[in-house]
Amino acid sequence: MGLFSKPIKSLDDLFVHMLQDIYYAENQIVKNLPTMAEKASNPELRSAFQAHLGETKSQVERLERVFAMLGQPAKAVTCAAMDGILSEAKEIISDCGDKEVCDAAMLAAAQAVEHYEITRYGSLISYAKQLGRADCANVLQQTLEEEKATDKKLSTIAETRVNKLAA
Amino acid sequence: MGLFSKPIKSLDDLFVHMLQDIYYAENQIVKNLPTMAEKASNPELRSAFQAHLGETKSQVERLERVFAMLGQPAKAVTCAAMDGILSEAKEIISDCGDKEVCDAAMLAAAQAVEHYEITRYGSLISYAKQLGRADCANVLQQTLEEEKATDKKLSTIAETRVNKLAA
Repeated sequence: MGLFSKPIKSLDDLFVHMLQDIYYAENQIVKNLPTMAEKASNPELRSAFQAHLGETKSQVERLERVFAMLGQPAKAVTCAAMDGILSEAKEIISDCGDKEVCDAAMLAAAQAVEHYEITRYGSLISYAKQLGRADCANVLQQTLEEEKATDKKLSTIAETRVNKLAA
Repeated sequence: MGLFSKPIKSLDDLFVHMLQDIYYAENQIVKNLPTMAEKASNPELRSAFQAHLGETKSQVERLERVFAMLGQPAKAVTCAAMDGILSEAKEIISDCGDKEVCDAAMLAAAQAVEHYEITRYGSLISYAKQLGRADCANVLQQTLEEEKATDKKLSTIAETRVNKLAA
């Protein structure tokens, strides 16, 4: 979460703060997925990255809808966790001397991204419910289901193709 | 993963590199969990942090066993993702003006830690199997099961206690 952000005094504040954190994270993913798709040599992995780019754009829009439902501006605060995951991903791409191993590393990085989102949306949905905002929880739940499905799809591609080819 | 690390040319290299990454991450968790336990005001949350500290120390030992099985020194490379997750956690603790909200924020941070570990151990186990190292996969699987159980336990504490009290 961001430096110089407002003090967090209530679960409402924490909810908004975590929305701003994941809003930053989703936007970073939108920026980085095209490069990952371009660098992927396995066609299934490339197509999974491309499909997830479309999904991520919808997820950004859903977050904007939730901000609007709360009467808040859609604002991002730097998410050090997502920056860390993505900087690791970039580094591994540049360190990899073999394209199949690079695919395996990018796939693992993408799963780290998914798991970060899964945990954050899980917390956000729990907060929304506790705050009596089932409307927000329902919107966020759609994204959570998509992230879980993407993670599962990536696991299947890893097991059946990418990690096998890298071995 | 770490700057100035060796180029990654094979799945063996990637496996060792990711072991070094999670070895760093686990050691950072060992350093940070005592503070989180100390700051937790909810007794169930505090006791979950304390219990997980013991588990994390065993997980560090398991990683050292896997390094030994591979004939590699137990070495850590900086994990920017874990650094990011933990710096967010520290920041939120210092930003929180209410102890129940602080508990909710720490619990969410701990779940982000668990999910990072779940995804990394998942990838490591897949690599170990592809490399014909079922012996390493079995050791890592024990940790993966513990991380999943901890995440589930934290979700229950969030739903039944901590997020309720924070609302």
